[in-house]
Amino acid sequence: MIEPTLSELVSATNIAWTLLCGFLVMFMQAGFALLETGLCRKKNAAQLMAMNFLVYTIAVLGYWALGFGFQMGGVGALTSFGGDATLSHEFTLQFGGKPFGLFGMQGFFLTSATLTPAVAALFLFQMVFMNTAATIPTGALAERWKFLSFVLVSFAMATLIYPVYANWVWGGGWLSQLGTNYQLGHGHVDFAGSSVVHLTGGVVSLVGAKLLGARIGKYDRFGKAQPIPGHNIPMALLGTFILAFGWFGFNAGSTLAGTNTHIALVAVNTMLASAAGAFSAALFVWIRYGKPDPTWLANGMLAGLVSSTAPCAYVGAPAAVLIGAVAGVLVILSANFVENTLKIDDPVGASSVHGACGIWGALSLGLFANGSYGDGLNNVAGKVTGAFYGDSSQFLAQCLGVATNLLFVGAMTAGTLWLTDKLVGNRVSKEDEVGGLDMPEMGVLAYPHDANIGEP
Amino acid sequence: MIEPTLSELVSATNIAWTLLCGFLVMFMQAGFALLETGLCRKKNAAQLMAMNFLVYTIAVLGYWALGFGFQMGGVGALTSFGGDATLSHEFTLQFGGKPFGLFGMQGFFLTSATLTPAVAALFLFQMVFMNTAATIPTGALAERWKFLSFVLVSFAMATLIYPVYANWVWGGGWLSQLGTNYQLGHGHVDFAGSSVVHLTGGVVSLVGAKLLGARIGKYDRFGKAQPIPGHNIPMALLGTFILAFGWFGFNAGSTLAGTNTHIALVAVNTMLASAAGAFSAALFVWIRYGKPDPTWLANGMLAGLVSSTAPCAYVGAPAAVLIGAVAGVLVILSANFVENTLKIDDPVGASSVHGACGIWGALSLGLFANGSYGDGLNNVAGKVTGAFYGDSSQFLAQCLGVATNLLFVGAMTAGTLWLTDKLVGNRVSKEDEVGGLDMPEMGVLAYPHDANIGEP
Amino acid sequence: MIEPTLSELVSATNIAWTLLCGFLVMFMQAGFALLETGLCRKKNAAQLMAMNFLVYTIAVLGYWALGFGFQMGGVGALTSFGGDATLSHEFTLQFGGKPFGLFGMQGFFLTSATLTPAVAALFLFQMVFMNTAATIPTGALAERWKFLSFVLVSFAMATLIYPVYANWVWGGGWLSQLGTNYQLGHGHVDFAGSSVVHLTGGVVSLVGAKLLGARIGKYDRFGKAQPIPGHNIPMALLGTFILAFGWFGFNAGSTLAGTNTHIALVAVNTMLASAAGAFSAALFVWIRYGKPDPTWLANGMLAGLVSSTAPCAYVGAPAAVLIGAVAGVLVILSANFVENTLKIDDPVGASSVHGACGIWGALSLGLFANGSYGDGLNNVAGKVTGAFYGDSSQFLAQCLGVATNLLFVGAMTAGTLWLTDKLVGNRVSKEDEVGGLDMPEMGVLAYPHDANIGEP
Repeated sequence: MIEPTLSELVSATNIAWTLLCGFLVMFMQAGFALLETGLCRKKNAAQLMAMNFLVYTIAVLGYWALGFGFQMGGVGALTSFGGDATLSHEFTLQFGGKPFGLFGMQGFFLTSATLTPAVAALFLFQMVFMNTAATIPTGALAERWKFLSFVLVSFAMATLIYPVYANWVWGGGWLSQLGTNYQLGHGHVDFAGSSVVHLTGGVVSLVGAKLLGARIGKYDRFGKAQPIPGHNIPMALLGTFILAFGWFGFNAGSTLAGTNTHIALVAVNTMLASAAGAFSAALFVWIRYGKPDPTWLANGMLAGLVSSTAPCAYVGAPAAVLIGAVAGVLVILSANFVENTLKIDDPVGASSVHGACGIWGALSLGLFANGSYGDGLNNVAGKVTGAFYGDSSQFLAQCLGVATNLLFVGAMTAGTLWLTDKLVGNRVSKEDEVGGLDMPEMGVLAYPHDANIGEP
Repeated sequence: MIEPTLSELVSATNIAWTLLCGFLVMFMQAGFALLETGLCRKKNAAQLMAMNFLVYTIAVLGYWALGFGFQMGGVGALTSFGGDATLSHEFTLQFGGKPFGLFGMQGFFLTSATLTPAVAALFLFQMVFMNTAATIPTGALAERWKFLSFVLVSFAMATLIYPVYANWVWGGGWLSQLGTNYQLGHGHVDFAGSSVVHLTGGVVSLVGAKLLGARIGKYDRFGKAQPIPGHNIPMALLGTFILAFGWFGFNAGSTLAGTNTHIALVAVNTMLASAAGAFSAALFVWIRYGKPDPTWLANGMLAGLVSSTAPCAYVGAPAAVLIGAVAGVLVILSANFVENTLKIDDPVGASSVHGACGIWGALSLGLFANGSYGDGLNNVAGKVTGAFYGDSSQFLAQCLGVATNLLFVGAMTAGTLWLTDKLVGNRVSKEDEVGGLDMPEMGVLAYPHDANIGEP
Repeated sequence: MIEPTLSELVSATNIAWTLLCGFLVMFMQAGFALLETGLCRKKNAAQLMAMNFLVYTIAVLGYWALGFGFQMGGVGALTSFGGDATLSHEFTLQFGGKPFGLFGMQGFFLTSATLTPAVAALFLFQMVFMNTAATIPTGALAERWKFLSFVLVSFAMATLIYPVYANWVWGGGWLSQLGTNYQLGHGHVDFAGSSVVHLTGGVVSLVGAKLLGARIGKYDRFGKAQPIPGHNIPMALLGTFILAFGWFGFNAGSTLAGTNTHIALVAVNTMLASAAGAFSAALFVWIRYGKPDPTWLANGMLAGLVSSTAPCAYVGAPAAVLIGAVAGVLVILSANFVENTLKIDDPVGASSVHGACGIWGALSLGLFANGSYGDGLNNVAGKVTGAFYGDSSQFLAQCLGVATNLLFVGAMTAGTLWLTDKLVGNRVSKEDEVGGLDMPEMGVLAYPHDANIGEP
């Protein structure tokens, strides 16, 4: 083997880093599966695990065929990645997309002409990000979603809904160009996906849970919400640990460059925000409800993680703690609001964890960015600076990105679910829901031994 | 600390990459444990978890003492690794082994003279590969295998059966020299172990399950197979997630070089094949049996992974999808054949997942290798090219490697089990099997609380 | 992006390595949670999972605020890290601390002036080490520890108890200077924390379990210990797998430099000791008690890992096997001694796994260090050499470090628990303990479905 040059070694190190972080993010799928299944009932556990399993395969295939091309296939983006020494979102944005082009149009099916190692690494990393968004709704729509409808909706997310919005922020699209075109800071900035990944998943969750309707028994005849505990707290907490572990890849990998030492600050901010979120949630429920309910510890940590995802590269350590601590309380207030005021039944609180805290994450960047990172991002000179450090226009760009997500993803979700309802029906039968989805939907029970099947 | 040169930095980066990927592969052991235990019954869960646990320790110790030396201790192999900038299978093959030497004879016990950092990294990586092969039979022979017999068979795999075959393919042995000696392509090529690791595990599984006989109750008095569901679907799917996560290390680590940017293409092909396998299996069972049984989703993904393991560095993305999709159906057909035609009781389908799909993986390389990688591999000029791209002799080399594995590993397994049956008996007593192996074999129940032991 | 120089690339590679290994160590928290919860009863599973969850957030916040500054904030330490090419414990020690200064006094709250990428990576890595120590007592004090007391004790460990002792060994403190000041080898040497991390956790465990008293029902009226089996063996073994996986980051990451190829030898020694520990424990219990109890396989592996943690960089492969094998037996003898002679009820054996084997690990370094590594460590010329290789003074330094830990950590623990007992009470009520801690302490059951709550 011929020894690489320094430049080639830098490039190879960045590709290896991007892959390793992508592997960690892929493992988060197991975390979502355990968290959601643990927080739901035993009688639906096989279906929910299977959804969390199959969504990954749907995501891979849909994104390979179409999604990646729509997202990153802007003019110049794919070819320019090929030989470049350092992968980065910033780099993409400089080359990807025409002004106001709504999506890319090349790179479908990763045919060999486009598949350089750098593009392959980018595909893998972006794939697992999209997959994270795609798996979030399985929690919010759990315990009454028909498996076939889930398959179709997931394909829509993988091929179209996610990639188009992601193109606007990370593929050189119009939200990334709010800075160059309208002097709104550096355009909509989202380091690792508070809006692109989490808010997208959260909006699909909220709209989907609303359209699907509440589970039987969730609201009594006076419309009062009833608790429906999950079946396995250790499973849910193990899932949360796995998510927190993989999230280091999610955030620190988003430099797409292991040679960018800023990854250390990103990782520390991620850790601080996650801890602050869990601890503030624990204190809040402990004081308000008398016990530190473990499900809120879990959702508090996820709230901190989601909210750190956009700002983690742009803020200082104390700000990360503050952002996480706010998120830990916000997620509880939001979940109460969704359940008791909106009367929407979201079994695992996904719309609050990923939606409300996704918004908070995107906005907090526009407040707390301290001008220490992001030089030249989206072709705007200078570093990213939030309202508290002097640039209110950045906060406006953040608001526009959030509002766009709410409108676009919300409308797309409603349309998709309308269509799947016509085609295959979205909701299982009443009998299946009451009796449990595992046998009618999947043909097996999650814990068959309990029924003494197969014992000699 | 003195700053390394560029060359030293390349070497160090490769060692770090090999170690990190090796750690991921080691973690796959947890995946196997959960998959197999979830697919078997509660009453045997402690024994099966303990087998999956102890096999790792047996593998480490046996491979440290003897196996590694037999596999990689060919003439020149160990010393030449020491100072080399890039570790790679290719490199090994160029230096390891004499023509038709049947195994290596140095490096036993890793005494300090041989233990350079590069050799240490190679040992760790090859160890976890061998361990993967060694743990596969615990699933196929589950629920009736005596613990002591398992210990002895596992030592035989770690010290002799696996290392010798691995020497022939990866240690410079005769299968790797089919190209230079007989003009059969590049000799038997196996990037990450479809034949070396998985087929070996699959053959031991099939032969072992046959010799041990079916579990009581598996076949009724007419010889018709009865379903014996496992006890925990979420556990089995979590295990599969862990396997799919670790498999990125398995395949992408097999360059033994993080500075080889080809790792990105390897990782993407691995991901694509895994998803295609799971999705095609899901479709197949859904259409044929009416429900997308989650256990087949899991085995379909593993089928895609196993079959991608040999060809993942040599084929394009569309071919990877095709190889995986074929594997997802093949694994189901094979499992039906084993269960209903051969009347062999393989509780978790290991012989089909690792055996049948291991064969398919090795052969598919001989068909789909597109001439883009492997220049100079096994001292043959040019890149690896399969039958569909013009070199049918490569396909023949693949067939020879597979046939050799079937014969050699099959015969060694039969001999080993014959011996252990004489020495300690292979199968538990009828009483223990019916009552559950946990208490008589391990002295504890997997879920002791159910029996209300230990409660005040 | 401007391309880095070779020197910058080395530094970046080391930071990336330190982060990745730190992520692995963070994931060990999930392993501890599962191990401890699996080895305890179902009725306390939610509380124990929640403790293992919340301890991480307490650790992050406490260490961020105060602990890291006390530990590493010695004169010169933080600033000198900033621009250095290679992070390492050795490096720290050369710059950190004044002679006999008892702790550092800068770096609190990671305010931006001190937070260079290198310091951030160091913080993250040291944080997860401290967290490991902090989570160990949750097992030893399990099933009767009041949640609020746990919160306060954990803060004390994160901010004061651990950081001060860690400063003495790794922050340039007096134990690290026993070599320069008193010609005791290289001073107290602890590569990855047999004494700093594990012994600290073990001492808190032993003292805490003693002060808290035995669980109701543990000892009969004759004072004879009764077995109280855990509720989930697969959960405990999964936890152990995760710990063994993460331990590669623990030990190999402790070079703080991926460019130091010695990481390969460290990883191999870690693997060998873990396997030897589990296998020797299996043989010992098999022969002595008739069955290879899986809980002892798990504790045997952990014993091997704990004991390898100090010496893994300084000894050869055969010595690593020996050290691990001794540990596998030692942990069983120690647990019997604690339970039957000292009459201290440690439900998971944490004081033996981390305490006894932590001592053995620290001392074994002083015996088996073969003079192959550690040149210039702690400002002492030459490499680290143990008593069996000619330097008995190194063994003495190891003994002093252990004795100091026993005295300091033991006294601090007693004082802390005395205080928390006065403030909030350390032990739950008798009713809660008998009925199970989950509902009274956490407000939820671990497995709520069993009680048929929430079913329509």
